[in-house]
Amino acid sequence: MSVKIVHNNYGKSRVRLMKVARRGESHEIQETTVKIVFEGEFREVHIVGDNSQVLPTDTMKNTVYALASQTREIEEIETFALRLANHFLINNSPVTRVIIEIAEHGWALMALGGKTHQHSFIKGSDEKHTTKVSVTREGAAIESGIEDLIVLKTTKSGFVGFVKDQYTTLPETTDRILATSIKANWHYANADAATGENWRGARQTIIETFAGHDSLSVQHTLYAMGEAMLEKFPDITEIAFSLPNIHYLPIDLSRLGLENGNQIFLPTDEPHGLIEARLSR
Amino acid sequence: MSVKIVHNNYGKSRVRLMKVARRGESHEIQETTVKIVFEGEFREVHIVGDNSQVLPTDTMKNTVYALASQTREIEEIETFALRLANHFLINNSPVTRVIIEIAEHGWALMALGGKTHQHSFIKGSDEKHTTKVSVTREGAAIESGIEDLIVLKTTKSGFVGFVKDQYTTLPETTDRILATSIKANWHYANADAATGENWRGARQTIIETFAGHDSLSVQHTLYAMGEAMLEKFPDITEIAFSLPNIHYLPIDLSRLGLENGNQIFLPTDEPHGLIEARLSR
Amino acid sequence: MSVKIVHNNYGKSRVRLMKVARRGESHEIQETTVKIVFEGEFREVHIVGDNSQVLPTDTMKNTVYALASQTREIEEIETFALRLANHFLINNSPVTRVIIEIAEHGWALMALGGKTHQHSFIKGSDEKHTTKVSVTREGAAIESGIEDLIVLKTTKSGFVGFVKDQYTTLPETTDRILATSIKANWHYANADAATGENWRGARQTIIETFAGHDSLSVQHTLYAMGEAMLEKFPDITEIAFSLPNIHYLPIDLSRLGLENGNQIFLPTDEPHGLIEARLSR
Amino acid sequence: MSVKIVHNNYGKSRVRLMKVARRGESHEIQETTVKIVFEGEFREVHIVGDNSQVLPTDTMKNTVYALASQTREIEEIETFALRLANHFLINNSPVTRVIIEIAEHGWALMALGGKTHQHSFIKGSDEKHTTKVSVTREGAAIESGIEDLIVLKTTKSGFVGFVKDQYTTLPETTDRILATSIKANWHYANADAATGENWRGARQTIIETFAGHDSLSVQHTLYAMGEAMLEKFPDITEIAFSLPNIHYLPIDLSRLGLENGNQIFLPTDEPHGLIEARLSR
Repeated sequence: MSVKIVHNNYGKSRVRLMKVARRGESHEIQETTVKIVFEGEFREVHIVGDNSQVLPTDTMKNTVYALASQTREIEEIETFALRLANHFLINNSPVTRVIIEIAEHGWALMALGGKTHQHSFIKGSDEKHTTKVSVTREGAAIESGIEDLIVLKTTKSGFVGFVKDQYTTLPETTDRILATSIKANWHYANADAATGENWRGARQTIIETFAGHDSLSVQHTLYAMGEAMLEKFPDITEIAFSLPNIHYLPIDLSRLGLENGNQIFLPTDEPHGLIEARLSR
Repeated sequence: MSVKIVHNNYGKSRVRLMKVARRGESHEIQETTVKIVFEGEFREVHIVGDNSQVLPTDTMKNTVYALASQTREIEEIETFALRLANHFLINNSPVTRVIIEIAEHGWALMALGGKTHQHSFIKGSDEKHTTKVSVTREGAAIESGIEDLIVLKTTKSGFVGFVKDQYTTLPETTDRILATSIKANWHYANADAATGENWRGARQTIIETFAGHDSLSVQHTLYAMGEAMLEKFPDITEIAFSLPNIHYLPIDLSRLGLENGNQIFLPTDEPHGLIEARLSR
Repeated sequence: MSVKIVHNNYGKSRVRLMKVARRGESHEIQETTVKIVFEGEFREVHIVGDNSQVLPTDTMKNTVYALASQTREIEEIETFALRLANHFLINNSPVTRVIIEIAEHGWALMALGGKTHQHSFIKGSDEKHTTKVSVTREGAAIESGIEDLIVLKTTKSGFVGFVKDQYTTLPETTDRILATSIKANWHYANADAATGENWRGARQTIIETFAGHDSLSVQHTLYAMGEAMLEKFPDITEIAFSLPNIHYLPIDLSRLGLENGNQIFLPTDEPHGLIEARLSR
Repeated sequence: MSVKIVHNNYGKSRVRLMKVARRGESHEIQETTVKIVFEGEFREVHIVGDNSQVLPTDTMKNTVYALASQTREIEEIETFALRLANHFLINNSPVTRVIIEIAEHGWALMALGGKTHQHSFIKGSDEKHTTKVSVTREGAAIESGIEDLIVLKTTKSGFVGFVKDQYTTLPETTDRILATSIKANWHYANADAATGENWRGARQTIIETFAGHDSLSVQHTLYAMGEAMLEKFPDITEIAFSLPNIHYLPIDLSRLGLENGNQIFLPTDEPHGLIEARLSR
């Protein structure tokens, strides 16, 4: 039978790396998780098991270690991702596209007695700085992003005026807890814009908008965050948000003979709303 | 600034449900997790917070419960997903597409003393029967699938003849453990083909091909499984596989003054290879 | 200041191992996770950092690999745990007690076309066969057990006649779903009794009792399971159960204008009841 | 057969709660997870299913909500745990001991433009402030603690002079990465000492000692942290540490024709060392 390979890719996931940079007594660390994906025309691999054009995923992993060791300084994950992608593309002619995704995990130097320690660190939240670069022989597309940045506001959020039908039980509210785990990815017009400064500015814009916005729905806040990003950062051409609604439900204390003055809430993980959109200029 | 909404969707994730069907003393159960996604033109929701066309995700959840209760019998998840999608599409004019994803978790009646018990069950593996239906006013697309089906073979798998470069350390091997966690999704030409019988047949074809194939690489086995599916099931038009390589690495016992006769292996979760392809006729 | 070390121990956790036994074409596998704990008088290690009596945990790990490779056959985890414990105790004079815990993960040979395949396996549920041996120079104590065995019955379970107070909202019920994830550990009077046959018998006794019991509470079923074990297995001197109540809550459909004929339930992971007891003769 | 109930307990786990305190525009939040355990003589429950002395775990959960709602201010988890325990003990005569465990999750007000926001929060790390109170009719024992506080230092840690045997492959090192996820629990001599101030002081002492210590082993650092605690806090009578060794292993780049100048490390979760001790005066 004639079978068509519509699409194929392969690579290595969850390659973990800790890099330490030492300037005298002062140390810096960077912990990352790297994913490598190759696309290309690999018909013979699939059909007859001819591996003569296959770079093993084990070698991909080794290459991450090798290229990481070639710079003594910590580099932005966007820069490292581009170096990796270009290395793989140059050295593997059957490959038509290399995608590198990197997530950087948060560590901070300890603050002790009003001073920053030089080599002792404390783990931060699950928030990750992410990047995804996609490189072909025609050029590179570069994204930066955020994952698992969990934020919450205790007021300035409501949800009213929605559709009611025979299965509606949700009451309208003009004052609820709004919480979400922000996942955002934005495209840069050019690789030079993918700086740490821009990433920190974008992150701050998202947080400030979340905090300052009078939210009428998650969609409403999502749009406000994206609009602020596109307004402030001319190098950003598009931004996508994925915002799970982390519900904190008011507990019905009337069954216990008590009143809940918007004070006691039940945190729940499931089920949860999920609001997504992609915005551009 | 003029911001364009390139794409948007919203819905409810992780809606869990257990349904019990009772025929006299003989009980049947079905545990599922449902995801609902709405697409549509929702500009005013995002820009000015007008919720007048928004069905709350809480109501989506209630609707799952309501529609599930309307049949006394257990129904195939593909059938239930279509019922849900059509209900939502018919009753929500601003919505242009409804996507329903359902995963069914494995439970089996207990076998006790050579007999099958009538109302006592034991939880199976993490393997899930999945479906995804995508319905618009033009029609429905329907997929069935499998997730987290973990299989392993201790021989008839090799990996040789691959590209070597300066970072290669992987030895060639003609006899290794091959293990993967199968994720597969296939499209049916029409909704009528999405039967439990076809699902069970497709699953069996995947397993038998995995077991019987002389594997030269994960890609090679992936292709063989897809080819067998497309050969046996004329109603299946396309199939996608995502196959993480669950590595069982031979432990180097020579450093301990011992020999490893292909007998002792280290199971590792990370890093891992990931092989993906989509095949059609 | 004078500080007293009330208790101390150290060891290696999560040592994973896959062992393959080959008898011609017919293969057998055993995947395990091993934990090693040493107790002893290690004051100087703690106070002045003198490691001269410390076997590194890395060596513990290597020893697991080495001793596993010394038998070609798969052995019961109880036997392997005793071998490991004795090896460590004999070779490390400062150690006063060695505790070895092993969990064995479920794999089964594939059944294909009415026949059992010889070298292809499918992963089972999360249920684990466990053991814990604790060995001193005075002797050995040996436990076998089960973890994550999830069972459910759709009837023959009620919960009535309980204490009511001002915060009670739970209705009484004579017909509910009862589900739990069984964790059980039992002591054997002597090491020789720790056979695979006894383990399988004990497991079957637990399952049969769960299925056949008219349950008035989780405590009631727990006791029945323990009593059956102690009755059937004279070599078992004591058994401990830890039974989380996996709640499947009837969904209140009356708010949706519908009736729930004990048919639609909400699976929840939290909060959950937890019932524990230790029974002996 | 005569079966003895050696020990039994029951209760509710994973009761989650979010409490919001509002002083005008300025809001404070506290997210907690509560566990309730009852001990007592409950023979008839187990043997004949007589529930007449059983407070349902569902009511325990409701009681958490009710008692939380009775104070408008956020209270220390130690105080809330004692209130809960005493409520249960006073109202349930068959109960001989109530154990309450509470974990508090980290949230911080957002810092925006040099100012602290009044009602917008950001999730912190997985670190938890914990407490465990155990109350009988004779009195209360109270512990505070820390869980999942992950710390790392890039120097001032070595491991040399250890036992070598035929399975040793670990090289000695005088300069390695030391990382751990701190779990610590300390007993207070009296409930009045269980203040937030003492908790913060104890936490800071642990961190400072970790950072400042010239570590010869995990045991050595554990002891130094405990000694510092017992020296500084006269109200603390005993402290227990459980310290998994989070290994960051130097990657052998020599196989890639490169040198690793103590710069590139592999983070691994398994296997891992685990070092535990309990210290008192």
